[in-house]
Amino acid sequence: MNKVKIALLGFGNVGSGVWKILSSNEEEITERAGYKVEVAKILVRDLNKNRGAEVPKNLFTTNPDEIFEDDDIKIIVEVMGGMEPAKDYMERAIKSKKHVVTANKLAIATIGDDLLNMADEEGVALRYEASVAGGIPIIHGIEECLTANKIKEIVGIINGTTNYILTKMYLENMSFNDALKEAQEKGYAEADPTSDVEGYDPLYKLRILTSLAFGERVDVNSIYREGISNIEAIDVEYAKEFGYVIKLLAIVKDVDDVLELRVHPTMIPARHPLANVNDSFNAVLIKGNAVGDLMFYGRGAGDLPTGSAVVGDVISILRNNMDLNKVVDKPNRVSKKKVNNIENAETQYYIRTTVKDVPGVLAEITTILGKNNVSVLSVIQKGKGQEYVTLVFVTHKTFEGNMMKSLEEIKELSSVQKIDNVIRVENGYKG
Amino acid sequence: MNKVKIALLGFGNVGSGVWKILSSNEEEITERAGYKVEVAKILVRDLNKNRGAEVPKNLFTTNPDEIFEDDDIKIIVEVMGGMEPAKDYMERAIKSKKHVVTANKLAIATIGDDLLNMADEEGVALRYEASVAGGIPIIHGIEECLTANKIKEIVGIINGTTNYILTKMYLENMSFNDALKEAQEKGYAEADPTSDVEGYDPLYKLRILTSLAFGERVDVNSIYREGISNIEAIDVEYAKEFGYVIKLLAIVKDVDDVLELRVHPTMIPARHPLANVNDSFNAVLIKGNAVGDLMFYGRGAGDLPTGSAVVGDVISILRNNMDLNKVVDKPNRVSKKKVNNIENAETQYYIRTTVKDVPGVLAEITTILGKNNVSVLSVIQKGKGQEYVTLVFVTHKTFEGNMMKSLEEIKELSSVQKIDNVIRVENGYKG
Repeated sequence: MNKVKIALLGFGNVGSGVWKILSSNEEEITERAGYKVEVAKILVRDLNKNRGAEVPKNLFTTNPDEIFEDDDIKIIVEVMGGMEPAKDYMERAIKSKKHVVTANKLAIATIGDDLLNMADEEGVALRYEASVAGGIPIIHGIEECLTANKIKEIVGIINGTTNYILTKMYLENMSFNDALKEAQEKGYAEADPTSDVEGYDPLYKLRILTSLAFGERVDVNSIYREGISNIEAIDVEYAKEFGYVIKLLAIVKDVDDVLELRVHPTMIPARHPLANVNDSFNAVLIKGNAVGDLMFYGRGAGDLPTGSAVVGDVISILRNNMDLNKVVDKPNRVSKKKVNNIENAETQYYIRTTVKDVPGVLAEITTILGKNNVSVLSVIQKGKGQEYVTLVFVTHKTFEGNMMKSLEEIKELSSVQKIDNVIRVENGYKG
Repeated sequence: MNKVKIALLGFGNVGSGVWKILSSNEEEITERAGYKVEVAKILVRDLNKNRGAEVPKNLFTTNPDEIFEDDDIKIIVEVMGGMEPAKDYMERAIKSKKHVVTANKLAIATIGDDLLNMADEEGVALRYEASVAGGIPIIHGIEECLTANKIKEIVGIINGTTNYILTKMYLENMSFNDALKEAQEKGYAEADPTSDVEGYDPLYKLRILTSLAFGERVDVNSIYREGISNIEAIDVEYAKEFGYVIKLLAIVKDVDDVLELRVHPTMIPARHPLANVNDSFNAVLIKGNAVGDLMFYGRGAGDLPTGSAVVGDVISILRNNMDLNKVVDKPNRVSKKKVNNIENAETQYYIRTTVKDVPGVLAEITTILGKNNVSVLSVIQKGKGQEYVTLVFVTHKTFEGNMMKSLEEIKELSSVQKIDNVIRVENGYKG
């Protein structure tokens, strides 16, 4: 049996998951890869940190040269995350003719195309299955399995932290703050939860999926993004009343050859396949023009699930005798699509307002909506007889531009104290 | 751009789906495959049958020699189904050094290993993604994406017809016969529905998944199989009362290196990820020791979804320059597992009995259960005060052998008129 040496850059959560999988599933991996996989070096910042007894001390190094200058090391597994020095190391690896497997969503979302081109030129593979949705083989699914399809839409729950929080809010009626606190205590959310809670993390992942499915290099900063920190317990209650569940969705749709991308909290019907995706689970629903609706569901994070994707990529490179770069790893570059401005996105809306309990306020608001081509699907009024009451609307489909214009005008009404919240509603799924 | 000629064997539902996809997605497919794919011949039984206007008449032939003796035809797409002449044609194709893509679950489940070995020897690829769960890339998922895992369990809803019937029974309180009739009217069930309704179809598919995931060549006839024709509306009602949904599951579990295979109607908790898979949708839940729980959900049948899998296989062969047979298409042959007898399977049970409404009958039955190591989780009695009442039990986990022994003894009780139904309950999922 041939042996192949690989090196890990970083030994945090994912790195130790990779190590554990390579140890515990050694026999299967050797059989499937056609090579015995040996971790020859592990780059870390601190040699003195306790890494658990089972990793030989002599594998750790703080000197990257020991890895990049060792011609016997054929595959670099980048699991340190962040932009620098990960970017620099991946470039160095590719230029040293080493294959690269990475779990780095930030790097792939922002400079992935350049890295892929560089890998192409050097004749090595760059694989990044673990960068989106952890253990779920969504990259491979789009790249290798759905090749017969024009992809029309991808809708994903691709951030476990926010899904955990929203699940707690939905099933246990927790407030956002309490749910966030519990997520932090359980290690699902970071001390500074901004990247997850404000939707940056799913934004990067959406950028990666879009590039793969549509061949479009979208500027991450141009994608509409809204987090979940404005979702209140009362919105969750109203969602239930309307038969909806609130999820943070990352959406890309091909609407008549124009791409529409957005990340925002969304109300979806309780029978939607994504509605039942709970806790820290991830799921991605893909619509292809041949396959129809296809959903992948699983663990979007964690040492072993993410390690599963990383080691799967390593095996895939080895299986193909480290010579697969000719055809795979290339995003689908067939059709250059235009990217839609959020104003042109068409969806339904949930609007929660606080208004004076006076006659005519409902008529005033619906007149504004009607004038802007927004038609109302249902209205709930709560708190009859008090000075201020809550008025909740769900609209039919309309353009975001129409809605924003309506909201500006509604705000100006003297009978409207406040627009408390606006949440988009996606009803599209015909399951 | 290189051109490659392929031939279709059969032009029914799937064959015409393949044709439609090749036409409508031609640009994408050419880009991704690296070849322009041209259907050169289509083998049919009847040249005079109307095939729709868009297929040129001169492509159809009734003479297989025109296909097998044409060296320009590189890939054979077998979409005729059934054992003969499909088996003969596939063997002929392989021996003529043509790659084969098939949607034939019967052939792959029963002689797939021989065909794969033959393809290996001849240096061609044999692909069969479409043979299990239509458009869902489950074969590829196991073979290419989960390679870092020891697979511990596969649980699938892999028959759309029975899932449609069970959905109607559950959501619309239909009887089995009414639901079957509707399925037949809508084209989901055949005039003779035996293969679906009695669980033969999912049995073949389970055999294919088992071979892939565990490398085990299980005799199809040795797998425990039970259909859904015994499920009555009243059982569905009781299932609801206990918080369960009834699904026809195909199950293979690795229990301490012994494989347990079974196909039977199963009660699962309403929050189980498979519980919400409705209508003719399929879904497969895989447990890997690294990835954890992973689910694939989508359309298990239909011209375009199945065609999506077939064309995906064609593209995959072309992408790899028709030279990938060395490493893929091989089932995982690492560990030779023993196969469990159904008596040793461990699960929970729902038992519906009709008993005389006399004191002591509950004690008599529970005494028998207790003696056989079956402990009761819950009991419902309905119809107090009549001569006969219904007594429904749900048990804790026990071995099938214990349960069968108990049922034999319970049947003999003079106070028991009838054991109406026994349905297994799988509670295992911790989502």
